[in-house]
Amino acid sequence: MSGQGATAAPSPAPPAPSGPPPKVVNRGRSAVPVASSNSDESDIPEFEPFGLPGPRGFPPLTEYLDIMNVDMMSRPEEINKKQHNTTFYSSDQLIVRRGQEFQVKITFNRPYKPAEDKFAVEFVIGPSPEFSKGTYVPVFPTKGRQSSWEGRITNSNNDTVVMGITPAADCIVGKYNLYIAVATPFGIRRTRRDYSRELYILFNPWVAEDAVFLDDEEERQECVLSEMGIIYHGSYDDIAERNWNYGQFNYGVLDACLYIMDRSEMPITNRGDPIKVTRKASAMLNSRDDEGVLVGNWSGDYTYGVAPTSWTGSTDILLSYARSKQPVCYAQCWVYASVFNSFLRCLGIPSRVVTNYFSAHDNDGNLKMDIILDENGRIDRPRTRDSIWNYHCWNECFMTRPDLPTGFGGWQVVDATPQETSDGMYRCGPASVMAIKHGQTCYPYDASFVFAEVNSDVVFYSRSKDGTMEPVRVNRTHVGRLVCTKKPGEMTRRDITDQYKFPEGSTEERTVLEKAEGYGCQREKSEPPPADVDLVLPTLEISVGEDFEFNLEFINRSDQRRVVDTYISGSVVYYTGVTSSEFLFRDPTVTIGPNGSEKELVVIESKHYMKHLVEQANLNFIATGKVKETGQIVTAMKVVTLRNPKLTVKLSEGGKVNEEMTATVEFTNPFTFSLEEVYIRMEGPGTMQPKMRYYSLITAGSSLSWTEFFFPHRAGSTRVIATLDCPKLRQVNGQANVTIQA
Amino acid sequence: MSGQGATAAPSPAPPAPSGPPPKVVNRGRSAVPVASSNSDESDIPEFEPFGLPGPRGFPPLTEYLDIMNVDMMSRPEEINKKQHNTTFYSSDQLIVRRGQEFQVKITFNRPYKPAEDKFAVEFVIGPSPEFSKGTYVPVFPTKGRQSSWEGRITNSNNDTVVMGITPAADCIVGKYNLYIAVATPFGIRRTRRDYSRELYILFNPWVAEDAVFLDDEEERQECVLSEMGIIYHGSYDDIAERNWNYGQFNYGVLDACLYIMDRSEMPITNRGDPIKVTRKASAMLNSRDDEGVLVGNWSGDYTYGVAPTSWTGSTDILLSYARSKQPVCYAQCWVYASVFNSFLRCLGIPSRVVTNYFSAHDNDGNLKMDIILDENGRIDRPRTRDSIWNYHCWNECFMTRPDLPTGFGGWQVVDATPQETSDGMYRCGPASVMAIKHGQTCYPYDASFVFAEVNSDVVFYSRSKDGTMEPVRVNRTHVGRLVCTKKPGEMTRRDITDQYKFPEGSTEERTVLEKAEGYGCQREKSEPPPADVDLVLPTLEISVGEDFEFNLEFINRSDQRRVVDTYISGSVVYYTGVTSSEFLFRDPTVTIGPNGSEKELVVIESKHYMKHLVEQANLNFIATGKVKETGQIVTAMKVVTLRNPKLTVKLSEGGKVNEEMTATVEFTNPFTFSLEEVYIRMEGPGTMQPKMRYYSLITAGSSLSWTEFFFPHRAGSTRVIATLDCPKLRQVNGQANVTIQA
Repeated sequence: MSGQGATAAPSPAPPAPSGPPPKVVNRGRSAVPVASSNSDESDIPEFEPFGLPGPRGFPPLTEYLDIMNVDMMSRPEEINKKQHNTTFYSSDQLIVRRGQEFQVKITFNRPYKPAEDKFAVEFVIGPSPEFSKGTYVPVFPTKGRQSSWEGRITNSNNDTVVMGITPAADCIVGKYNLYIAVATPFGIRRTRRDYSRELYILFNPWVAEDAVFLDDEEERQECVLSEMGIIYHGSYDDIAERNWNYGQFNYGVLDACLYIMDRSEMPITNRGDPIKVTRKASAMLNSRDDEGVLVGNWSGDYTYGVAPTSWTGSTDILLSYARSKQPVCYAQCWVYASVFNSFLRCLGIPSRVVTNYFSAHDNDGNLKMDIILDENGRIDRPRTRDSIWNYHCWNECFMTRPDLPTGFGGWQVVDATPQETSDGMYRCGPASVMAIKHGQTCYPYDASFVFAEVNSDVVFYSRSKDGTMEPVRVNRTHVGRLVCTKKPGEMTRRDITDQYKFPEGSTEERTVLEKAEGYGCQREKSEPPPADVDLVLPTLEISVGEDFEFNLEFINRSDQRRVVDTYISGSVVYYTGVTSSEFLFRDPTVTIGPNGSEKELVVIESKHYMKHLVEQANLNFIATGKVKETGQIVTAMKVVTLRNPKLTVKLSEGGKVNEEMTATVEFTNPFTFSLEEVYIRMEGPGTMQPKMRYYSLITAGSSLSWTEFFFPHRAGSTRVIATLDCPKLRQVNGQANVTIQA
Repeated sequence: MSGQGATAAPSPAPPAPSGPPPKVVNRGRSAVPVASSNSDESDIPEFEPFGLPGPRGFPPLTEYLDIMNVDMMSRPEEINKKQHNTTFYSSDQLIVRRGQEFQVKITFNRPYKPAEDKFAVEFVIGPSPEFSKGTYVPVFPTKGRQSSWEGRITNSNNDTVVMGITPAADCIVGKYNLYIAVATPFGIRRTRRDYSRELYILFNPWVAEDAVFLDDEEERQECVLSEMGIIYHGSYDDIAERNWNYGQFNYGVLDACLYIMDRSEMPITNRGDPIKVTRKASAMLNSRDDEGVLVGNWSGDYTYGVAPTSWTGSTDILLSYARSKQPVCYAQCWVYASVFNSFLRCLGIPSRVVTNYFSAHDNDGNLKMDIILDENGRIDRPRTRDSIWNYHCWNECFMTRPDLPTGFGGWQVVDATPQETSDGMYRCGPASVMAIKHGQTCYPYDASFVFAEVNSDVVFYSRSKDGTMEPVRVNRTHVGRLVCTKKPGEMTRRDITDQYKFPEGSTEERTVLEKAEGYGCQREKSEPPPADVDLVLPTLEISVGEDFEFNLEFINRSDQRRVVDTYISGSVVYYTGVTSSEFLFRDPTVTIGPNGSEKELVVIESKHYMKHLVEQANLNFIATGKVKETGQIVTAMKVVTLRNPKLTVKLSEGGKVNEEMTATVEFTNPFTFSLEEVYIRMEGPGTMQPKMRYYSLITAGSSLSWTEFFFPHRAGSTRVIATLDCPKLRQVNGQANVTIQA
């Protein structure tokens, strides 16, 4: 069958190999895999011989400079951590910020002779250090030879020199290893790898050259150094607060944040760019797509994890993720935003959690939220699929945007709550707040999506029998009613709506909406004539379990009598605006005299809603109606967040650093039913690590009291915060203020 | 323990439930899941009663209009497919394009009376049809009542009416179900769901209102309707061609393309937007992240699948993915680009495959590719980690860009080959070619990444002993040397480099690079002085197995003698530029007289490289050197793609539609070694479905001949194309031209 001129015969094709294909290797595709881990560094050799003719054999070690000791000067009372605003980190390692000098003390075997001796301090990050990638950086003490990081001798005394090192203001952020290398004629001799010479280099909002420079000390103190969070929720006309311990300085949190980037396989070389770091992290904070940090759950069933309302801070979540390497259960928007905030502040990127009241969601950058009414003006619930979140939390972080034209730096929206964004992935941002305000939604990332969250119209459609629909009312002011965040240095809130939008009705507002439309955001074009009858629902402040009543007011602005067929609906809703169950329905016909007003009293007993309540205890009242004389549709909506009982937190007297204190949580079950499977959690920034206690049963009217000891570890004004959580009652919290003396 | 004043006692916390947490349900998060499947539609009811007072009971069916028959007029010879340019699709279903009228013939039980009878033609797509989302569209025959899709009676005859329907030019693209609904006083009566009334609505490059409108009939014929592909590879100065059958009209391919979008869980409502469709598909064509269509493999070991060089077209790949629902093994860049091209053309988005010679890869939008030399000017291979691809294929697709300022519509780059893009996901684009040309890299998506692929500098660094590096030579013209694609209507190529870049050295070019730099693309700033000695490597055209020789020329442009310590290295490289093994190394010292030139002869025997060859048989020659007198570094690089033996494809005489023909593939093993495990594949656009034959052994010098019968199924000029592939010899191909008469 062989040899010239022979003919090959076809054979049956061999069977395909069974089993899954082997993991495809990188061979042929790229020279080396992309370095994407900050935890498995490769060692660099202790001795690196020169391949040169010259004296052979092992070099005589005594003749040349030898390193006896390297002192990283990393104690909190020393100069480095103080000058770099990193004393708060619970870590023995040196932690400094880039673009700013820090000191390292090197002891040699003999005095250093600048003219003869050649040494370098080398910094190495990641598994394949390379000079041109910035993952291997030698720093020289001599003026003539400088790399991108500057070095100088700041002090010299006998065998010891203190070297000042200034990392480049755009260098990679993460954990480096430090080596000292001495040049001999035989080769390079360097120190062994040593745990004590690991150091962390962070973003630096204090230096102008850093992309995250924030030129306001009060803001920096808050948005980088404060662990105390206040998250706003409830509704815009009855704002509630939740405390949160960001815990970014707690032991292990910084390593957990680096682990998150490693887990995402983010190339090491990208980790100096705050745009890339924040975008990657917005994907990685949720478990969708990529086995990220937090599993979202809005179902009310949290059997397999911790209820989102039960968390008191980020520390437990971040440490659990880094330890178990599994997504942590469970989160809703403020948990995503708060843990993301911890991540950002921990790495040194200025950030804050903001709340947007009436947030348009999942509508893919279109500026319309649809509510469908039937021909009589009553809500058609099965066909109304969009929901407006009562509130939604996201993060802002501060940075320059060299990838965009000038003017779009500053605060940027990032959002880790998984949503179907325009880009089809579960991540969002960074989107320039300035671009959102000006309708410049063409700039990355996801500006059009955030624009829609604060600017959508609520469109009421009337659906005719044959399935067609006609817009009958457009509410252009409901969505994005208020955007707020915690005020720097205070425990109060700050309205930042004006950073997102021009005033309602202004010329600029109209221009901005037109501009965004030009970039493909679809708006409702029709302008149904305004009705001459207004419906008004009052603001209500009600505690869980209360009976209450309110008046629905009808105002007739016409000179004629008006008769309104009205539908009043009360539902228990999730904070996402999704309806759980309707507990009230009435359909009065109301007659209003010319230019007159009428009131319709609605009485609600607690037994009607109590058995339906879902976690955040929101009631949604919607009144819709059709004016008989004109056919016009009238609407009114109101969300009422029922007020829960509070936990009492009491602290012992005193309050000095490292002196024992006690915190006592007290609670009495005010209801006529028992609470079962109750978790109480407590912690505080700078005071107490997260603690948890479980009560299988708290019977009606009974009380509990739980006391914990703690040692405050730093001075300043802070809080101890506590939550109580069980399937029948969620979102119960309390806190106590304390000022710790040094 | 119960009653007023009792105290609850803490318990040990219950053990955490074991096992994985249950899949989190959507309850509480959103009102309904996002519709993201085009295959599981929900039925709409056959009778939909009105909830109104009126006559009760089942309606008397005879009294009102009843539907006897619906004719979709979907036969190729009928008007619909002809007018919509869809006759080529192998499908009995109606396939039309949006924004353009098509006809449906409806037969009632009696003549239609426009004044009395009310009916609508309804279109439904996806599992939760909604009017306001465009997934439920009623179309009315009467002028007064129109939805976003227009309807009119175009013909009426006895009991039959022909209705003309014009889908909105921005409607969702995919498979719809058609119903006829008749209004009766009792409710809506409609036709049952029926397979014959499924229809596909595609993008329409022929109408001005569609976002993919392409105002050039020749381009449309090529970029939408041609199945015949030519992919350029090899090197820019020795271009090779590979034929490809896109097969977008083959049976099952359209359904496979819709399955790809379903598999990606892309919301149905996004599927009318070519920006979103192409971006999603660029992620979904590769298996990274999302279990997409193709598994990349550059290793040379393709035991568990088909070698990338062995495919002849897209049909097998798309059908296999849709059938097995598993990623298909294996692809390299041209396979990704070709299958992506089939997907785009199949859905009606104009597209073409382009090849960029010397493509900078994986460098994350930075404009630098690093080559590291040691102090003597020799390449330091372990430290040279960047690679420049000999060529890289991607796609361009044509569309408006309403999300960007005006001027950036037209051709857009999309790329499905998995790379670490700036956005950190394995997808790329759509990036406006116009934005790339003008350095406007601030616009989404991934423009800066593509900009770097065509504009990077090759920077040679000299690395000193202490690890620092200094740029010694910058080649600003190597990367992005040529961009080309197939010419419309011809079998030749078209140079489109000028669509990506201004001429080398022009003022515009400099402005563009500065602009891109302003958006954060980092360039090499230094300008090392040009050496006064040039190294020149000749262009070589060599067949696999040949011995050959060439001259390396040294040109001295100075008035003095120059001595150059030279390193000449020859390596076998992958087409990705990654070195497999070095087979040649010489280090001559060459002396060149003032203003003179010298030649250094390099002789290569086939035995030196044959045993090292990797699949695409690329040899890379690099000459580097240091001029003794000046210390200047000189370099020259040349990639030689060895020419493989060809397959001979012979076709029988004749060539008429539906008349039998034969195709014969012939091959003789020209080598002195046997070829084992040989696959031969053959197919042709409009002529032959993919066929494959396996030969376990083709001994040295022996021949094979394989004949297949086929029936051409449409007229026109086409090809039958064949490949041969085995571990020892890849990328062997051949083709035969044929013109089929009607």
